[in-house]
Amino acid sequence: MHAYRSHTCAALNTAHVGDTIRLSGWVHRVRDHGGVLFIDLRDHYGITQIIADSDSPAFADIEKVRAEWVIQVEGRVKARDAALINPKLPTGEIEVYATGITVLGEAAELPMPVFGETEYPEETRLTYRFLDLRRDGMHRNMMLRSNVVRSLRNRMWDMGFNEFQTPIITASSPEGARDFLVPSRLHPGKFYALPQAPQQFKQLIMVAGFDRYFQIAPCFRDEDPRADRSPTDFYQLDIEMSFVEQEDVFAVVQPVIQGLFQEFAPEKPVDANWPRIAYRDSLLWYGSDKPDLRNPIKMQVVSDHFAGSGFAVFAKLLEQEGTQIRAIPAPKGGSRKFCDRMNAFAQQQGLPGMGYIFWREVGAKVTSEEAKRRFAELDALEPNHYKDVAWQIWFQDSPKIGYWGEVFDALAEAVQAGDLQRERTLRSMIASGVEPSGPLAKNIGPERTEAIRQQLGLGLGDAAFFLGGKPEAFESVAGRARNVIGEELGLTEKDTFRFAWIVDFPMYEKTDDGKIDFSHNPFSMPQGGMDALNGDPLNVYAYQYDLACNGYELLSGGIRNHKPEIMFKAFELAGYPNSEVEKRFGGMVKAFKYGAPPHGGCAAGIDRIVMLLADTTNIREVIMFPMNQRAEDLLMNAPSDPTNDQLRELRLRVLPKDA
Amino acid sequence: MHAYRSHTCAALNTAHVGDTIRLSGWVHRVRDHGGVLFIDLRDHYGITQIIADSDSPAFADIEKVRAEWVIQVEGRVKARDAALINPKLPTGEIEVYATGITVLGEAAELPMPVFGETEYPEETRLTYRFLDLRRDGMHRNMMLRSNVVRSLRNRMWDMGFNEFQTPIITASSPEGARDFLVPSRLHPGKFYALPQAPQQFKQLIMVAGFDRYFQIAPCFRDEDPRADRSPTDFYQLDIEMSFVEQEDVFAVVQPVIQGLFQEFAPEKPVDANWPRIAYRDSLLWYGSDKPDLRNPIKMQVVSDHFAGSGFAVFAKLLEQEGTQIRAIPAPKGGSRKFCDRMNAFAQQQGLPGMGYIFWREVGAKVTSEEAKRRFAELDALEPNHYKDVAWQIWFQDSPKIGYWGEVFDALAEAVQAGDLQRERTLRSMIASGVEPSGPLAKNIGPERTEAIRQQLGLGLGDAAFFLGGKPEAFESVAGRARNVIGEELGLTEKDTFRFAWIVDFPMYEKTDDGKIDFSHNPFSMPQGGMDALNGDPLNVYAYQYDLACNGYELLSGGIRNHKPEIMFKAFELAGYPNSEVEKRFGGMVKAFKYGAPPHGGCAAGIDRIVMLLADTTNIREVIMFPMNQRAEDLLMNAPSDPTNDQLRELRLRVLPKDA
Repeated sequence: MHAYRSHTCAALNTAHVGDTIRLSGWVHRVRDHGGVLFIDLRDHYGITQIIADSDSPAFADIEKVRAEWVIQVEGRVKARDAALINPKLPTGEIEVYATGITVLGEAAELPMPVFGETEYPEETRLTYRFLDLRRDGMHRNMMLRSNVVRSLRNRMWDMGFNEFQTPIITASSPEGARDFLVPSRLHPGKFYALPQAPQQFKQLIMVAGFDRYFQIAPCFRDEDPRADRSPTDFYQLDIEMSFVEQEDVFAVVQPVIQGLFQEFAPEKPVDANWPRIAYRDSLLWYGSDKPDLRNPIKMQVVSDHFAGSGFAVFAKLLEQEGTQIRAIPAPKGGSRKFCDRMNAFAQQQGLPGMGYIFWREVGAKVTSEEAKRRFAELDALEPNHYKDVAWQIWFQDSPKIGYWGEVFDALAEAVQAGDLQRERTLRSMIASGVEPSGPLAKNIGPERTEAIRQQLGLGLGDAAFFLGGKPEAFESVAGRARNVIGEELGLTEKDTFRFAWIVDFPMYEKTDDGKIDFSHNPFSMPQGGMDALNGDPLNVYAYQYDLACNGYELLSGGIRNHKPEIMFKAFELAGYPNSEVEKRFGGMVKAFKYGAPPHGGCAAGIDRIVMLLADTTNIREVIMFPMNQRAEDLLMNAPSDPTNDQLRELRLRVLPKDA
Repeated sequence: MHAYRSHTCAALNTAHVGDTIRLSGWVHRVRDHGGVLFIDLRDHYGITQIIADSDSPAFADIEKVRAEWVIQVEGRVKARDAALINPKLPTGEIEVYATGITVLGEAAELPMPVFGETEYPEETRLTYRFLDLRRDGMHRNMMLRSNVVRSLRNRMWDMGFNEFQTPIITASSPEGARDFLVPSRLHPGKFYALPQAPQQFKQLIMVAGFDRYFQIAPCFRDEDPRADRSPTDFYQLDIEMSFVEQEDVFAVVQPVIQGLFQEFAPEKPVDANWPRIAYRDSLLWYGSDKPDLRNPIKMQVVSDHFAGSGFAVFAKLLEQEGTQIRAIPAPKGGSRKFCDRMNAFAQQQGLPGMGYIFWREVGAKVTSEEAKRRFAELDALEPNHYKDVAWQIWFQDSPKIGYWGEVFDALAEAVQAGDLQRERTLRSMIASGVEPSGPLAKNIGPERTEAIRQQLGLGLGDAAFFLGGKPEAFESVAGRARNVIGEELGLTEKDTFRFAWIVDFPMYEKTDDGKIDFSHNPFSMPQGGMDALNGDPLNVYAYQYDLACNGYELLSGGIRNHKPEIMFKAFELAGYPNSEVEKRFGGMVKAFKYGAPPHGGCAAGIDRIVMLLADTTNIREVIMFPMNQRAEDLLMNAPSDPTNDQLRELRLRVLPKDA
């Protein structure tokens, strides 16, 4: 028999009854049922129930064991009584009667329990990560991650890609974050950098003639703390292909990602329709370049209805260049309470507030027969009597209300002017029995309100929220409001993954100080090539794309600029002289001069994919040994003080705080 | 049709004849056969011959292309004339008649050619790595490496292992080399370290309850330059298992490695017998702890034959404690020329030289019948006549030679003394017709020489070399001499892989200043546990092992010390107080206090495995973007000067050279 175990803790079943076996594992739980001891013995594979009574020669030893001790148990497999069978456990039909135990590793008093899924402060969990990882949820997350990475690799190989490892101690590869530097001992005073991504290397691999590269690549960014990212190193699925256009990359990525999600979240269907949404449309419609398409809400521009309207705030805003009014339709959001809450949300997010209209039922709803009859009665009136009596005919003995007063006044005007279209609109408003509410509606009047309602396709019980100004200033709040509205109103689908390709990113943007700079990846090929760069930079789009899923950016990529002359021009527009480009990206630029193929690719965040599949929003739940949010490893004690010898070898001195 | 290609450059064959196709790739070679242009168009997959004559609308454009330009070709597939078929090429039965070409990427004058496998200085190759990698040999090596890593992963998964990623920016994990440090920006003055190996993390993973871990793990060691290792980062197959003994690890590793070698070097058989050789035996027998077992030579201790002998150098040496004389048998090495060359080799290696004996034929070889007759004649002699005439009877009319004179003198002595055993030995020496040669043999005399010959199992035409002193001082030279002897004499097998487990490493060694220190891995479990540590440390063996193959160490590992009290004791013996252990390995020591399972594992060098399979001895031939031997990346320009901003953020100052 093996020194430590004849079986794992998940292997025994009724077929083994009567066998003498040996198990090893952790004491998950001990229960003392008055002279009979039960131990749930746990290993990586499962749990087996161990039992000992006072007749067992191991009884005295078993009495001593405590939670999380590592023990080895010899015993005989027994069938459980029918009443005691645990159908949830693969080993639930048997138990092991212990005849001997050996303590392999004792455990001190536990700072946090393993049994049960009690919440513990993250600092404790990270300090005792080896205990935290024993817990069922973390164990499952880690296995999920391992299997996801395995599956990704297999899927990439199946698509004809080869994995190559690129250097980790290398030169700076700027991707918009800070580099981690590594001082060189052999060349004191000089520093290596850890790659923010293998961007340049993967492009070099294409120039070197390898057709389809991928790598589960470690990346390093010295980022300021944020809840949903690792402050130091993380892994991405890095992909690059030669002789491809944008859609070729999509054709590789979709089956890989879709297949992965279906494999690991079979209960959550993946919509196979992955729309292509232009970056600017995505911001307009969803207030985000990583829209959550489970939420059906699509924002719209409603500036026309406010221009020159009685709502002075928006009307004046629209006189400034570059401003817009946008509406967030909120189907079923038609209550003042909800609308006020959303207004408060916008204020929390730093905006002055969010105007709204909601549509409620009016008291006098009428059947279409009755409406016809009443319109016939109205028709019989002299136009100049409309203003005074028409509403009475309609509303019978209800009091004259402000809004409907206005509507009937307008109807009178239309009839008098013989404006048939306006008359028809107003009659249909009256017949609908839906009454807009909220200060905005009052300010802009019934007809503009109705036009908004029709544009947004809303009706009774619905609401719409309005934001105005320069889109950059309110877009992201609008996006967050859209999320909250979708959630709160139950509009956002659950248990599904909705993907979209965000395309046509602008190549450049104007910075706050009015300069032109790259808005995203400087290495992407401008759509239209050199010709496009000779026009207005702000009109240039890049072959660059993101993959959004449920509000997360899962992947980002582009078709690369592989022509040195276009690359130099692109950088020149962003204010980088050729010398600077040669200095910062010398290796890649040099390579492009010796026969570079058209190529493109992308990179997907592994942590984020696993987060989505594990249904968590904390990245540290899917990383084995994460840093805390202050970029400290509490278990291994990093970072720490260097020794003087180390500093001397590197010829470095640490300056005092106030230097 | 796809924008860049309808087929790859390896896809077309006679089934496509007549088809209109599009290819993209690099111009491998252009040939101008008087008005007919031939281009070998190359991509990742293969080569297709493009042809254009002056009737082709693409002719003028094709005339302009040069080697390594990236072009796209439209054309029609044609069958080649039978005489022009190239059976070595998958596309060798067809060619493509070009009707159009597009230049996708021009190439400047090449600093080194891609076509052909011309040798180029390594600095040029590394500076233009993207060109170097296009060459057939490098392309094949990179694909081999990619496939080896893939296969290793699959094999590990098939054995029930899970891959987990461990942190890269972390705390120091000392493995005997220097750490690379990474200054922390968020905690100025403090430093992270890059792991020399994920040793502590993989042990923590075991303590966390995961049963079988592996990782293709990046490792970082700030090493001084050496030809066969990367001076910065490298990859290892890292393995750890719980509830195992040494042989359990072997049982996992052997099928993985053996299967891998059979998969990627099917023409080189792998001997399935992997002997276990104790570390001390390996040093004795092979002069190395990574013996090349393709070489059948096994060294032996021959001290007894030299103790008190006439060879004063060795005889005196042996009077000092701890000295030995060892012999390297060299079958078929029996020529003065060879022996002198080996002696010179030892001198080059820093030893005073290497004594030798070789056995050559003597003139008068006799049949056994004739020998019987002559012995009968000798028997008839009076013992006191032996000295003068016996050799004449034996050698008939040859002159009296020094060596044989001694032999017959000895025979006379033996006969006179009635020492039958000695007489029998001497008679058999005489009958053998083999005569030892070399100064050593003369000094120690015939009988000791013969005893050595018999111990080593040597005969006519063979040689033996002798080294003496403290084994530590000459063992490695002896090992290298063994290699050279095996090579030069054609004894070492070719085209095979011979593996051996080197086991029973001593736990401790005495340092030059007489202290006790760990001789290898401090984390290994001492054989015999705590009891063994209470005896003489120099007699303690560790559960630690290497896998040797053809003279390389492929893998190293151990069963770990998972008991805190044994670990503290083990470190105490090496002079480390508990506080130092807690400081340096705090995370792991803490973990061991909360229920640690017995565990063990190993790590195998990926680069070295690929080197063996690619049949190269230069590690840079199997790494995509290696550093040069001065730890510089010539393509990417690393390491380089940091900016002042970077240093300021890290609160570091670089000291001047003479500081």
